[in-house]
Amino acid sequence: MRAVEWLDGKLRILDQSKLPWEQTFADLDDYRDVVLAIKDMRVRGAPAIGIAAAYGIALGASAIRTANKDEFLVLLNQITQAFAVSRPTAVNLFQSIDRMEKATSGEGVSEVKRALVNEAKRIHREEIAATRQLSQLGANLVKDGFTLLTHCNAGPLATAGYGTALGVIKAAKEQGKRVSVLATETRPLLQGARLTTWELKQEGIPVTLITDSMAGHFMQRRRIDCVVVGADRIAANGDVANKIGTYTLAVLASENDIPFYVAAPTSTID
Amino acid sequence: MRAVEWLDGKLRILDQSKLPWEQTFADLDDYRDVVLAIKDMRVRGAPAIGIAAAYGIALGASAIRTANKDEFLVLLNQITQAFAVSRPTAVNLFQSIDRMEKATSGEGVSEVKRALVNEAKRIHREEIAATRQLSQLGANLVKDGFTLLTHCNAGPLATAGYGTALGVIKAAKEQGKRVSVLATETRPLLQGARLTTWELKQEGIPVTLITDSMAGHFMQRRRIDCVVVGADRIAANGDVANKIGTYTLAVLASENDIPFYVAAPTSTID
Repeated sequence: MRAVEWLDGKLRILDQSKLPWEQTFADLDDYRDVVLAIKDMRVRGAPAIGIAAAYGIALGASAIRTANKDEFLVLLNQITQAFAVSRPTAVNLFQSIDRMEKATSGEGVSEVKRALVNEAKRIHREEIAATRQLSQLGANLVKDGFTLLTHCNAGPLATAGYGTALGVIKAAKEQGKRVSVLATETRPLLQGARLTTWELKQEGIPVTLITDSMAGHFMQRRRIDCVVVGADRIAANGDVANKIGTYTLAVLASENDIPFYVAAPTSTID
Repeated sequence: MRAVEWLDGKLRILDQSKLPWEQTFADLDDYRDVVLAIKDMRVRGAPAIGIAAAYGIALGASAIRTANKDEFLVLLNQITQAFAVSRPTAVNLFQSIDRMEKATSGEGVSEVKRALVNEAKRIHREEIAATRQLSQLGANLVKDGFTLLTHCNAGPLATAGYGTALGVIKAAKEQGKRVSVLATETRPLLQGARLTTWELKQEGIPVTLITDSMAGHFMQRRRIDCVVVGADRIAANGDVANKIGTYTLAVLASENDIPFYVAAPTSTID
């Protein structure tokens, strides 16, 4: 089940807005459809948005009909601008745009088009490797028998890789540890209820859905051993931007002396 | 708009499960329908449940067809037991049952039946007076220009009187203070979204609906001047039981040095 996949010069996305009721894929061959998929949250999660945007830029570039490189770059710039405004909070998006812009140094237009596809694939591969590695590191902090709380969705769907917060939990299970999860509903769009529970069930990890307002109760009763969340963006000073409600969980964890971990690849850091 | 009203020997309730979409009243003349209305949360809120149960017991008593007082008391006891299990968390319910049991001391059955109706009316009047007075006292803590956060619903619907948490806000407005409210959605049954916003709009008090997980954000940004909530039950040591999520708000308020008030009549104290 891949959130984002490059297939024969098209971008196949799993429509996350329809999960868990329908597993619908869309094959996108127009970059404008990729922009819309990000805006409509059919692709979501900071790393997955970065990857989808890179493929989307490569897709847009491949459709430009000029052999003049200066003309090509002007048109390519319009495409990257369309992605830049698709989700202003996701820092991975801007890192992808930067990397794609740097990949345009080749001589001829067709050479640049190839380089863009390759750079998008490289971004995707690097994200997969990064989420796998951070998940291994994070899993070392998880003990056998832990119940973890997670908020929103930071799994393979969000990362187009192994997952960040859910990656840590998956890796802990792969290490042979028994783990169970409390997943918050996550209002307003129910990413926890719709996506996190669905992904954990597929992994065979016991998960209990709770409303956002129940987290404090379970922390106060010592029913949660640690909290692990993803991040939309991490500032250079360590400040974390993430789904609404994350601050609340951090304050509750602090009040109850429960470890609170943010799992994210370096691409999420400003 | 009355949550609970005694009319010609029947109990008229406003069906709160249908608000704000429909304003439907039901006239109940069988005590079993009152029990069901409490179980189904058509009547809700600790004080309103206490009042509805008192009227319900009076209703049940009036339908008992015996002139023998011992027989009558056995049958009455079955009725009060049905109310005792209708909502085990609401302490007002048990205070009402106690008071109704003490009102059965009269000689003849018809005298006791009258005494029960009068005791139910007295409980109702006392709750109205208590919520009005506590609202006045609470309003003195609210300053002009305050934005208050409230959770769940503790207005006239919940109290069959003036309201507790919302009573404080209403009284502050009556004192000439400009106040506005952030109301939490209140999962799982949306009492904040459905009832609190509806009641505040009727009072002409500006209200903004937020998800439960947004409260921390607004506290951290100093956009909330104080939190005021009702209570299902207050233990003798001061511990408060209230809708899930109340503890979370208290921790967040403490973290951000924001005053946190619980507004409740003494009937809510164990």
